[in-house]
Amino acid sequence: MASGCSELESAIEILVRKFYDYAKRKGKNDKMNKKEFREMVAKELPHVLTNTQNKEAANKLIQSLDLDEDGKISFDEYWTLIGEIALKLSQQMAMQYQERH
Amino acid sequence: MASGCSELESAIEILVRKFYDYAKRKGKNDKMNKKEFREMVAKELPHVLTNTQNKEAANKLIQSLDLDEDGKISFDEYWTLIGEIALKLSQQMAMQYQERH
Repeated sequence: MASGCSELESAIEILVRKFYDYAKRKGKNDKMNKKEFREMVAKELPHVLTNTQNKEAANKLIQSLDLDEDGKISFDEYWTLIGEIALKLSQQMAMQYQERH
Repeated sequence: MASGCSELESAIEILVRKFYDYAKRKGKNDKMNKKEFREMVAKELPHVLTNTQNKEAANKLIQSLDLDEDGKISFDEYWTLIGEIALKLSQQMAMQYQERH
């Protein structure tokens, strides 16, 4: 993405880049193994996952990996988690705006 | 979200907050009207939308609003656009990693 990105564009780029930062550590560059995913969650989502429902969402994803013999997470699966966190945060913000206005 | 967020958490928060920054301008706080959406796209996605395929994705969303008599965009619809941009960027990054390794 070009330099001088908007705040929104930079945020999208960070979310995508973080996936590859962890995925490239071992094995396939385009998938996170279970360990890489857990490292990502522990390091990159410490505050978000204090919320019980988001923690459940992450655990659900990890559990689904346990059933997978390869234990890999694709970008799509990673994005599902990001989307669940974003939706939860969106619901919180919507409530805040309702209270204010 | 708590202060001292990780880079990933801050990025998610920016993406969610930007939706409400535009949605709250007029009318319902939890939906963007067509004008708010176009302002958001023009200001927040200038580089991303130089890419033809992403531009098509945005136009497609806007066109679907044209058919909607209210012309509103919910958070879910906004997130669909963000997801399409992220997926495109992910495919570009995956190709870069394949070339390097």
